[in-house]
Amino acid sequence: MADEVVSNKQVILRDYVEGFPEESDMDVTTGTVRLSVQAGSNAVLVKNLYLSCDPYIWNRMKKLAGSYTESLKPGSPISGYGACKVIYSGHQKFKKGDLVWGITGWEEYTLITAPETLFKIEHMDVPVSYYTGLLGMPGMTAHGGFFRVFCPKKGETMFISAASGAVGQLVGQFAKLTGCYVVGCAGSKEKVDLPKNKFKFDDAFNYKEVTDLAAALKRYFPDGIDIYFQNVGGKMLDEVLLNMKSHGRIAACGMILQYNLEQPEPVYNLTQIIAKQIRMEGFVAFEFYPQYPEYLEMVLPQIREGKIVYVEDIAEGIESGPAARIGLFSGKNVGKQVVAVARE
Amino acid sequence: MADEVVSNKQVILRDYVEGFPEESDMDVTTGTVRLSVQAGSNAVLVKNLYLSCDPYIWNRMKKLAGSYTESLKPGSPISGYGACKVIYSGHQKFKKGDLVWGITGWEEYTLITAPETLFKIEHMDVPVSYYTGLLGMPGMTAHGGFFRVFCPKKGETMFISAASGAVGQLVGQFAKLTGCYVVGCAGSKEKVDLPKNKFKFDDAFNYKEVTDLAAALKRYFPDGIDIYFQNVGGKMLDEVLLNMKSHGRIAACGMILQYNLEQPEPVYNLTQIIAKQIRMEGFVAFEFYPQYPEYLEMVLPQIREGKIVYVEDIAEGIESGPAARIGLFSGKNVGKQVVAVARE
Repeated sequence: MADEVVSNKQVILRDYVEGFPEESDMDVTTGTVRLSVQAGSNAVLVKNLYLSCDPYIWNRMKKLAGSYTESLKPGSPISGYGACKVIYSGHQKFKKGDLVWGITGWEEYTLITAPETLFKIEHMDVPVSYYTGLLGMPGMTAHGGFFRVFCPKKGETMFISAASGAVGQLVGQFAKLTGCYVVGCAGSKEKVDLPKNKFKFDDAFNYKEVTDLAAALKRYFPDGIDIYFQNVGGKMLDEVLLNMKSHGRIAACGMILQYNLEQPEPVYNLTQIIAKQIRMEGFVAFEFYPQYPEYLEMVLPQIREGKIVYVEDIAEGIESGPAARIGLFSGKNVGKQVVAVARE
Repeated sequence: MADEVVSNKQVILRDYVEGFPEESDMDVTTGTVRLSVQAGSNAVLVKNLYLSCDPYIWNRMKKLAGSYTESLKPGSPISGYGACKVIYSGHQKFKKGDLVWGITGWEEYTLITAPETLFKIEHMDVPVSYYTGLLGMPGMTAHGGFFRVFCPKKGETMFISAASGAVGQLVGQFAKLTGCYVVGCAGSKEKVDLPKNKFKFDDAFNYKEVTDLAAALKRYFPDGIDIYFQNVGGKMLDEVLLNMKSHGRIAACGMILQYNLEQPEPVYNLTQIIAKQIRMEGFVAFEFYPQYPEYLEMVLPQIREGKIVYVEDIAEGIESGPAARIGLFSGKNVGKQVVAVARE
């Protein structure tokens, strides 16, 4: 068994992407992998179960400099967050059969040479795929931004762009549990129905059907917005700035629409930051990883009691990877986009 | 004496300003004033000594909505911060001969109907004009932004735009006293000499002589900028964003260049806020007014010991008011712009 060689389908990045990424920027190829770890190595060989489609990865398909994340390597499998099963372990922290989540490859099997970065999955009464979303990096993004950066108070008003996305759906539900008034927006009827009906937001609207965003914001927030959970940037940020309340807070945890623009959309209304004493803060989930155990302690009971729900959009098979990844950019997914490589 | 009527020169706003303000938007006229306060009123009549030229007042010359400040009234004297002498008081907190600072009129004498907002001047071993700058609103802006919003640490790097202005010169000196590395920029040789030689910044440059701002910032901050004290907005903010360090902080306490633009200059690089986990925070001085006594306690000894110096650009006479006010916008002033209406 230890020396068994099996085939390994992989999603390979062809070359650095310039501009808008396309499915053809990736190849699905089949290689082989030896199901063992070199003697003396502390690497871990995992079987990938669920792969996470995260916006920041588009950025990694470009030739980057000076970002918090590094470029992917052309000719190599794409990497990203995933939930995986340990097949062979050279590391004392893990043993065969353990479930883990962390950075892995877009392929069936991955040799992880820095297994210290992996989180062990201890709670299996919730879907394993949740560890790519609600219980993984997007969950920590929502939690960190919401509870540690913005400390919202009961009665405060919150606006969420990308309200049915991996992070947005959670932020809104946390806000409702805190007693905030929450309105979200999204880009299709289906994606608006989720926050309205399933996530129990106070309201939601399709921004593509709104001709006058300023008027819509005025209607939903006659007294202004305290907290804006910002995934979008550009024009929407400009309109929101005009509708913020004094001492409002803006979490900048993703500007999806900006990732692939050669020249990002400009923002004009930053003087509002002074006029209204606004705080705008950028953050990334891994800053909050040390608090992961407390996050689980809070959120697992809420999941079990049905107080927090999570909607995933699962694409089947590693072959569906490139389409799922590109679909995220055009907003095809309804809920957190996951690729199921294997179920166990 | 109580019923004496004297002439009162006033700077009147002709009409709401659209676009760039000009001297001709203001008239200097001569009216009269009765040197008393109606029986039963708690108003205070003051003789204006020094008037403060503050950037935010340009904004008040326009027809405003939704700002932290209200429009001035066409046909009435312009108002703003000043240091004044009490001539007649209907308020128990003040008596004839007291010196005060706060919002007053651009005229020789002003009847202040809400004297609760005035600060009494208790320390007179420093120039009275300082209470329009270092010891007034600009001082509280510098102090609040610096010590309460940004809490800089020894060794951190700071970039200051408008480095010889009312606030910039102070922020830089506070930063040097804290052990920061400080570089400023300004728009003329004279204004660059001040931070370099008088305020003891580590360096300063004339941004008008720099053809490649990005390269200049890289040269002065090879490892990046921790703190940017932002007075300007627009293109400079974009370049600074690209040169910020991880977890950098940007204080937005004024965007002078933006005040008079119909369409403000756009900002393109806000995704840097996420990539570098930057915090950008807007604030206004009056949020910090409750801490004014502690500020005085800190800064007065520093002034007396010569650790903090302050450069003013004093225009003589109320007639010089319109020119001084407009000059501030084109950057004519070297140091804090004050109008001396009377010396005592």
